[in-house]
Amino acid sequence: MAQAFQATVGDSEFDRDSAVTRRDAGVYDIEFSADWTIFGAVNGGYLLAVLGRALADALPHSDPFTISAHYLTATLPGPAVVRTEVVRTGRTLSTGQASLFQYDEQGTEIERMRVLASYGDLAALPDDVHTTAVPPDMPPIDQCFGRQDAPPPAPGARPVSDPPAIAERLMIKLDPATLGWALGQPSGKGEMRAWFGLADGRDPDPFSLLLAVDALPPTAFELGVKGWVPTVELTVHVRALPAPGPVRVSITTRNLAGGYLEEDAEVWDSADRLVAQSRQLARVRLG
Amino acid sequence: MAQAFQATVGDSEFDRDSAVTRRDAGVYDIEFSADWTIFGAVNGGYLLAVLGRALADALPHSDPFTISAHYLTATLPGPAVVRTEVVRTGRTLSTGQASLFQYDEQGTEIERMRVLASYGDLAALPDDVHTTAVPPDMPPIDQCFGRQDAPPPAPGARPVSDPPAIAERLMIKLDPATLGWALGQPSGKGEMRAWFGLADGRDPDPFSLLLAVDALPPTAFELGVKGWVPTVELTVHVRALPAPGPVRVSITTRNLAGGYLEEDAEVWDSADRLVAQSRQLARVRLG
Repeated sequence: MAQAFQATVGDSEFDRDSAVTRRDAGVYDIEFSADWTIFGAVNGGYLLAVLGRALADALPHSDPFTISAHYLTATLPGPAVVRTEVVRTGRTLSTGQASLFQYDEQGTEIERMRVLASYGDLAALPDDVHTTAVPPDMPPIDQCFGRQDAPPPAPGARPVSDPPAIAERLMIKLDPATLGWALGQPSGKGEMRAWFGLADGRDPDPFSLLLAVDALPPTAFELGVKGWVPTVELTVHVRALPAPGPVRVSITTRNLAGGYLEEDAEVWDSADRLVAQSRQLARVRLG
Repeated sequence: MAQAFQATVGDSEFDRDSAVTRRDAGVYDIEFSADWTIFGAVNGGYLLAVLGRALADALPHSDPFTISAHYLTATLPGPAVVRTEVVRTGRTLSTGQASLFQYDEQGTEIERMRVLASYGDLAALPDDVHTTAVPPDMPPIDQCFGRQDAPPPAPGARPVSDPPAIAERLMIKLDPATLGWALGQPSGKGEMRAWFGLADGRDPDPFSLLLAVDALPPTAFELGVKGWVPTVELTVHVRALPAPGPVRVSITTRNLAGGYLEEDAEVWDSADRLVAQSRQLARVRLG
């Protein structure tokens, strides 16, 4: 019997698709396929991972500790260039900036997003943990549901649209308490929780955590908001190297107001460590 | 009887001290006094307000919606220059970047902090509010305590050091539940709550909110951590124009681990509106 291929950190779909090619010092090229898109636009968390890799190459430290991105216009499949700048290098922390550009019809670079980030060495952090936050109260993974488990839509329910291309790259198993939206019965609570991993079984690492915080369905769906909820800004703190195995992502929205909402995400690893925290500001189109 | 001077937005100590002088297009000068310092370093939230003002002048939109700062080295009293860049202008949102520099002995510019921010028009936002977060459970302001109310230190308590210079610019009345640290009895809970305003009575505005989220004593004090807790990165979302009168600032730390902690701040105005949310990553020196 042929051995199933086991993707590993460094040898996986995510690694191949988020890799950048150095063109010059601080300048990196990438060609985006449609594989990591949602409704035609390349996913923001995946883009953050791409720029994160470029910065890891440009800076003397390799792990993002805190990384903020402002999303200017949607990134589409096609060629792109990342231009980085070293802002400051220190003994334990370095800071850098990165911009992603694509090309208009004249070949002029159009900036899609800009990132500011501070990097360090997660493996060098002391292992004292005084976290008072607790993992989300969620069922085990085999009692959570992915796309493949979806029942036929109930009468009057939101029509089941084709899953976004990115969904095939991911293993997402939603907490039953946060999938009412998929059955035409949004809970009215700004919550979304799921077990998360990569479809080929690759273990998590700091860069896949940047993807994880922006890969679940929007909390807006449970709030009965339809349509696109574009991210304006996303800041992620990566606090520890994640243990192997799927992570739990728990997202909360408490301030839907004035046409914007925040999504607060926590990522918990298999060792019950709070490995990443993020907040994004997203625009909501009501009505 | 002479009328007491009533500071207003635009005519107050905070406005005068956070104002920048345009030198060239996108370039602004400021001279920092010692008035807004803590232990000799200029306060990070005040600095964010200064850069925020420069960006408001440089961008076509005037209100910070989401603003992220990476702090590189401490800013000291003395001259400084802010250099801004317009990243993108849109119909409802614009994005800009700003750096703060000071001068070394040769007059070379040394970057102190860099900011990335997206601006809009808060007054133009629709007034639908679906906030599910609730204001912090705190006593009324006359049952909270400021510096002037401090009793003599108890035997064995942390010695009362001179209050930082910035304290004289501010009206901070701490929730009694979060001032155990000042009496030698830290609660062990990562919480800090206070009523907040400016000492001269000026009402809040988006820029003073940037100060408010970084002006309280560190939650680390209640966690029994002594010493400086420098901010690495701070992201603030300003979600609404604040109503007049003091605000309530509620800060929480849930992930003290590996030599870092996060501080999540919420700012509630007198109309019970959640007007700002922030998160900072700070470094902790344990032991």
